[in-house]
Amino acid sequence: MSQSQPVTLKDWSDLLKSLPKADAAAAQAARARNGVLTKPPGALGRLEDLAIWYAGWRGTDRPSVESPQVIVFAGNHGVAARGVSAFPGEVTVQMVANFEHGGAAINQLCKAAGAALSVVPLDLDTPTADFTQGPAMNEAEFLAALAAGWNAVDPQADLLVVGEMGIANTTSAAAIYLALHGGSALDWTGLGTGISEEALPLKAQVVADGVAANPGRGGLEILANLGGRELAAMAGAVVRARVLSIPVIMDGFVCTAALSCLARESADALDHVVAGHGSAEQAHGAALAKLGMEPLLDLGMRLGEASGGALAIQILKGAVACHSGMATFAEAGVSEG
Amino acid sequence: MSQSQPVTLKDWSDLLKSLPKADAAAAQAARARNGVLTKPPGALGRLEDLAIWYAGWRGTDRPSVESPQVIVFAGNHGVAARGVSAFPGEVTVQMVANFEHGGAAINQLCKAAGAALSVVPLDLDTPTADFTQGPAMNEAEFLAALAAGWNAVDPQADLLVVGEMGIANTTSAAAIYLALHGGSALDWTGLGTGISEEALPLKAQVVADGVAANPGRGGLEILANLGGRELAAMAGAVVRARVLSIPVIMDGFVCTAALSCLARESADALDHVVAGHGSAEQAHGAALAKLGMEPLLDLGMRLGEASGGALAIQILKGAVACHSGMATFAEAGVSEG
Repeated sequence: MSQSQPVTLKDWSDLLKSLPKADAAAAQAARARNGVLTKPPGALGRLEDLAIWYAGWRGTDRPSVESPQVIVFAGNHGVAARGVSAFPGEVTVQMVANFEHGGAAINQLCKAAGAALSVVPLDLDTPTADFTQGPAMNEAEFLAALAAGWNAVDPQADLLVVGEMGIANTTSAAAIYLALHGGSALDWTGLGTGISEEALPLKAQVVADGVAANPGRGGLEILANLGGRELAAMAGAVVRARVLSIPVIMDGFVCTAALSCLARESADALDHVVAGHGSAEQAHGAALAKLGMEPLLDLGMRLGEASGGALAIQILKGAVACHSGMATFAEAGVSEG
Repeated sequence: MSQSQPVTLKDWSDLLKSLPKADAAAAQAARARNGVLTKPPGALGRLEDLAIWYAGWRGTDRPSVESPQVIVFAGNHGVAARGVSAFPGEVTVQMVANFEHGGAAINQLCKAAGAALSVVPLDLDTPTADFTQGPAMNEAEFLAALAAGWNAVDPQADLLVVGEMGIANTTSAAAIYLALHGGSALDWTGLGTGISEEALPLKAQVVADGVAANPGRGGLEILANLGGRELAAMAGAVVRARVLSIPVIMDGFVCTAALSCLARESADALDHVVAGHGSAEQAHGAALAKLGMEPLLDLGMRLGEASGGALAIQILKGAVACHSGMATFAEAGVSEG
């Protein structure tokens, strides 16, 4: 398998078809350890599965989570000019400054989780093209965004959360879902950051127009045509994480759209990914169901900027702390049931 | 209102009828602050409500969570002799030693959450009476257990999680629910730490027998008759927390049973309490619905020992960190929608 940086579209496609697997022996050893910890079998519920999954990707039966990285990619969307967002496009660059000054939700959540935050603005002065008129990105733009994602991952990280900021990007995400899964535009279109119910039909029409204008149905093709730079970068980062055996916690509606494009390319592409939270954006549950994923958290969040994923770091940390720190029945002298 | 330590049953009952309220002005100020933070309105979902709720109980519009306390109360149950648990009764004392040596799940979860852990064994050499034959505790025993809970709370804590360890205490909890809410014993009886499906009818019969043998239906009466020392102590601690304006995160099935007895005494008794998690124990969802509560986490946990509540500390910490640490639109120079 190639672990060098993909350059061409074919490189990316080939890599997605030959991704490394988890360490089955480590996962098996972790499962065995889980069975002798001082608790009734299964009593920690999903925490047990999470710890075993994490152990497999980290290649050790007793892992720890020491260095989580959260990356927020920001991009601007040509389709924002169509009036699909409650906020003006300049908010993207304003929020990037807010991230850099420590004032956003994600800054607080990273601090609480002991995670390093990387903020990666992507050509904010050059919005992607309006995808209702053709592809959002040409090949060079798409490859540059994938590469930006690839390069943003810290190889020393032991957990990655990717997220995004980009006015109008729930429109982009809805178009991706429609292209991937079919149905009607309204099935996948929601209120985003807070447009009115009255504005929803316009947004859905833009989504439908985008999918009609971009007939390709390959995963990378859909991502280039209907995504934005920040969506492509999230996908690039998640592939890099796979190559580095870094498990990933997925954020919400927009992040899931980007990663769903990887799953379209290769059925096992998201084996190293768990869903951090279920978004309040109405179609997110259906999008997760298409991936066979259950979110760790369901708190009605719909902020983006990796916030739900960052909060879920704490759940994974708790799971791994229990797994690796608990005494066994024998060590503690506790009678088994 | 009295804030001195209740001594008699009438003292407890009177206190429950005159509990202090949250600081409405602080909550209102927190709500106003929440409205100008750099995010679309409502985009942090339940985190916003949590932060405002916490602010009200802490009496400041910009609180922090610095000193969470987790208390695990342990007790032994006479009804364990009826064969209702998958584990022998000596496991209670063995697990207390495990807590004290740092080997249990709750030790790891407290460390991860930055919480202080207090372990309070309650007369483990003297199990409560078998409640199928009459009250589990006499008045003196019940008052001693309530007082143990009251006294275990650190007045310097700014958040409290209570939990329990006690072989056979899901049987006790099921009996409490049946006495409080009616229905059939099987409605409230589950597999606990892992009895077989075949053993369930026996457990349900024990639950039914207990309720039949103890006809009283007041909240404190039910808690004394069908609870255990660790359940009474959880209730006593939660009342103390109220008097000290310390918000509480409730743990799972057994903890909810104990606190439901307080809610029976006084409709507002749990206003300072949120449900930390939904247990895998089948009746917990119905028990929470009776309290009008939605759990913060739903991860299939059923361990007890405050584990779900301790994990939920992280959610509350994240909520409060966002609320108190984020910049406002004006501070960050971000355009409002």
